[in-house]
Amino acid sequence: MSESKKGLTSVSEIGEFALIDRLTANLPVYHKSTIKGVGDDAAVLQYGDKCQVITTDMLMEGIHFNLVYTPMKHLGYKAAIVNFSDIYAMNAMPRQLVVSIAVSQKFSVEALDEFFGGLRLACEEYQVDLVGGDTSASMTGFAISIAVIGEVDKENITYRSTAKENDLICVTGDLGAAYLGLQVLERENKIFADSKGGQPKLDEYNYVLQRQLKPEARKDIIDYFTKNDIVPTSMIDISDGLSSELLHICSQSDTGCNIYHQKIPIHQQSIAVAREFNMEPLICALNGGEDYELLFTVPLEKYNIILLRNDISIIGHITHKSEGCHLVTDLNQQIPIVAQGWNAYGEQK
Amino acid sequence: MSESKKGLTSVSEIGEFALIDRLTANLPVYHKSTIKGVGDDAAVLQYGDKCQVITTDMLMEGIHFNLVYTPMKHLGYKAAIVNFSDIYAMNAMPRQLVVSIAVSQKFSVEALDEFFGGLRLACEEYQVDLVGGDTSASMTGFAISIAVIGEVDKENITYRSTAKENDLICVTGDLGAAYLGLQVLERENKIFADSKGGQPKLDEYNYVLQRQLKPEARKDIIDYFTKNDIVPTSMIDISDGLSSELLHICSQSDTGCNIYHQKIPIHQQSIAVAREFNMEPLICALNGGEDYELLFTVPLEKYNIILLRNDISIIGHITHKSEGCHLVTDLNQQIPIVAQGWNAYGEQK
Repeated sequence: MSESKKGLTSVSEIGEFALIDRLTANLPVYHKSTIKGVGDDAAVLQYGDKCQVITTDMLMEGIHFNLVYTPMKHLGYKAAIVNFSDIYAMNAMPRQLVVSIAVSQKFSVEALDEFFGGLRLACEEYQVDLVGGDTSASMTGFAISIAVIGEVDKENITYRSTAKENDLICVTGDLGAAYLGLQVLERENKIFADSKGGQPKLDEYNYVLQRQLKPEARKDIIDYFTKNDIVPTSMIDISDGLSSELLHICSQSDTGCNIYHQKIPIHQQSIAVAREFNMEPLICALNGGEDYELLFTVPLEKYNIILLRNDISIIGHITHKSEGCHLVTDLNQQIPIVAQGWNAYGEQK
Repeated sequence: MSESKKGLTSVSEIGEFALIDRLTANLPVYHKSTIKGVGDDAAVLQYGDKCQVITTDMLMEGIHFNLVYTPMKHLGYKAAIVNFSDIYAMNAMPRQLVVSIAVSQKFSVEALDEFFGGLRLACEEYQVDLVGGDTSASMTGFAISIAVIGEVDKENITYRSTAKENDLICVTGDLGAAYLGLQVLERENKIFADSKGGQPKLDEYNYVLQRQLKPEARKDIIDYFTKNDIVPTSMIDISDGLSSELLHICSQSDTGCNIYHQKIPIHQQSIAVAREFNMEPLICALNGGEDYELLFTVPLEKYNIILLRNDISIIGHITHKSEGCHLVTDLNQQIPIVAQGWNAYGEQK
């Protein structure tokens, strides 16, 4: 199968998004129950009066997680959360989950109990029914695939492609912490491996570690939208980094954007940890993945409502396409936004 | 993670079905849209007047397929078919499919084009909408996870657990061929590897090879049920072998069964190939996996209708639980049926 030797194209050459575009170009639709296929956080179906959304994610050992520092229970929890986050990004509520796992012989039944314990805990906390799945063997390592179905009133579905000029760009929580948590874990893992003993010192990194190991999805924000009659004009969850997600919204909505350096929410601990690693906190916030916060746009007239909410930051606004996508610095310089988000293929050694 | 060394339980010790039972025991249900969770070919949901069913399957390189003799296009086709088969086994029609793949660097974009070509072909032939997915990297090999949603009128859903005493046991098509196709492929692969050259001779094995490499799901049977107002009392698809599936129906329906050696459908080529491998054709039919035929039960009064259909065999009947599950031989001996179906964990080296 070493076909790249024969002059064929390697996956890393074209990247994940171009690969998906290529593989899913011109898909036919046979059923009226299919409202929207590939191209958003989730596909949209309509059975009955309401709409259903469905999303799927695959997590592979050695690529998406390292079991040396990821407890199985946390992994189960996180595997569910990343899918719930995609459902919330459609302004929908997750309802049912199916899970497939493939495990090699190194895993005990007790380890899988832990994994399912985490998965069940996430389902309990987010009120989602675990309705089915598949377990199988694997030659090497652990593979997880989860699909989640959610439900939403048709008029409330929020796509990536419907942001409008002058809309406010908002982001929940703070950014970059999960990426920095990963840096801490990898450093401690390396120190631990080199010294062959001793306990890693992790107390002062509590926040960034929790953001990496036990992320939450923003159900509370969807509840808040409902209570306040807010339907965002567009929304996406931040799994690959703010820059990458913002470019998805702008390219699919055919707009530009300006966001402001000063407005981007970064946790105090993230700033401290970034400096410790000689990284620029802003870069971690723009390009670090796995925050699972929501990035959304609302019409200008929602400014006064959104402003009242502490954990939502208004970071900029949507512009005409011709203005491009920019970050505005403290010195009022405009820097083009480039996607340098987490690329599973780029990470592969 | 070598936890089995610490006295923990290995997955192969308890087997796939016991593992699933353990991991999914006492799952809560929060939503009225969840009709039936874990425990059948697919979970059953209800959004709107009709019901939806959802199933998921994961296929791992080296466990479920060997790319040395499995063309990528066939793999894509088969990956879809195995899921469609689960949907038909609920007496439902597949509507939407989501797919996740994880690939290592050895795979070219062109190889993935082939895989998606097969997947799209299956979706076209079975009229299913490919609506979403995920691609990611893998440290080693190729992993595929597919979830399919189907639709069915509530009164037509066919579970495994509702067979009744005296019902006829029916099976579509013929059994054992896919397993024998795999034996041929593995033998030729070994000969090819040993001789380091030459083309394998496969012409005389066309039927069993096709059953292994390009299986079909029995949409035609569901159409036939609809046209003839037949709702089976129970149904399951044969992926792990007739014995294993029949025991699922009987244990979940709380019944026994008698099936008759002479009635079990085996293709002429399967008999010839089995003999060539010094195998008993009946054993291949009982325990060989991946046939993707349907095993179902109907009330006795459907005998005259079913009899008219060439590609459905009536192989026995459901009995009281106290009579156990037996195969009746030509000499009228009763042999207890034991599940020796394909076990992904048992196969693992």
